[in-house]
Amino acid sequence: MTPQSRADDLQKLRGLVKDIDFCMLTTVDETGHLHSRPMSSNGDIDPDGSLWFFTSASSHKVDEIAKLPKVSVSFADPDNQRYVSISGTAQLVRDRKKIDELWRPEFKMWFPNGKDDPDVALSRVSTEQAEYWDSPASTIGYVLNFVSSLVSGKEADLGENRKVQF
Amino acid sequence: MTPQSRADDLQKLRGLVKDIDFCMLTTVDETGHLHSRPMSSNGDIDPDGSLWFFTSASSHKVDEIAKLPKVSVSFADPDNQRYVSISGTAQLVRDRKKIDELWRPEFKMWFPNGKDDPDVALSRVSTEQAEYWDSPASTIGYVLNFVSSLVSGKEADLGENRKVQF
Repeated sequence: MTPQSRADDLQKLRGLVKDIDFCMLTTVDETGHLHSRPMSSNGDIDPDGSLWFFTSASSHKVDEIAKLPKVSVSFADPDNQRYVSISGTAQLVRDRKKIDELWRPEFKMWFPNGKDDPDVALSRVSTEQAEYWDSPASTIGYVLNFVSSLVSGKEADLGENRKVQF
Repeated sequence: MTPQSRADDLQKLRGLVKDIDFCMLTTVDETGHLHSRPMSSNGDIDPDGSLWFFTSASSHKVDEIAKLPKVSVSFADPDNQRYVSISGTAQLVRDRKKIDELWRPEFKMWFPNGKDDPDVALSRVSTEQAEYWDSPASTIGYVLNFVSSLVSGKEADLGENRKVQF
């Protein structure tokens, strides 16, 4: 993948999710069970493909991510029949500068002690692969890869997507 | 959990998802990567807690489910700020009677050869735990357990949910 096509893919991905604030973050626990919960991505993805979520550093999902960092982030906009699935790797980030940059006053709803509470942290998800569907009626899902080593996986996925998604 | 409360929980869960046709099914592949894709649940859950999805028996996700059957099914209805996460176990079902029962003519969109195509099969997801959020502004997620052995896990989850979901 050339740098230019990677930039195009990222621009496409950012356009797809920009109006969908809440997504579902899926993690795996030590017993292999999957858990999803709604999270706000602020509708944005960094130029390097990272998604940022505010989190409580002491939460259960942070434990899960520390042990098994592979996650899925899925965006669903049923009214516009738009579905996006991102596969990536999550890590806990305690960078106060980044917290200051991303903090918005309304987040006090979740963190009543404000952004300086030491329990306030960020989960950063690095996008490795994204897939989107313009419509569930389509049998084609479009794959965007952000890790060059996944090129062979991309071809396999496209083969599947062109057959049937349902 | 008494049979009565289980029935109440299931009724609650069925009510939550009945107007959300498309959900995201998340599976794990052998390398530990998570993949999500939109699937139609027909907005229904069986009285025994099973969700049914039509699938191509030769699809990539069927391979994933055969090897690692733990899955997540998440429903998002952003307009009504309703989010539901189901953790369960998936299996491939080739029961022609069940296929006949669930088939609808519009599924030809995905399966042009019709329901008698031997590649048409079902994925059955047995619900083990469900969680829902009336609003992402709420810091509380409600947990519904359908497997009694998960009672201790339920208590842990409730502890987290009462703290922060974001």
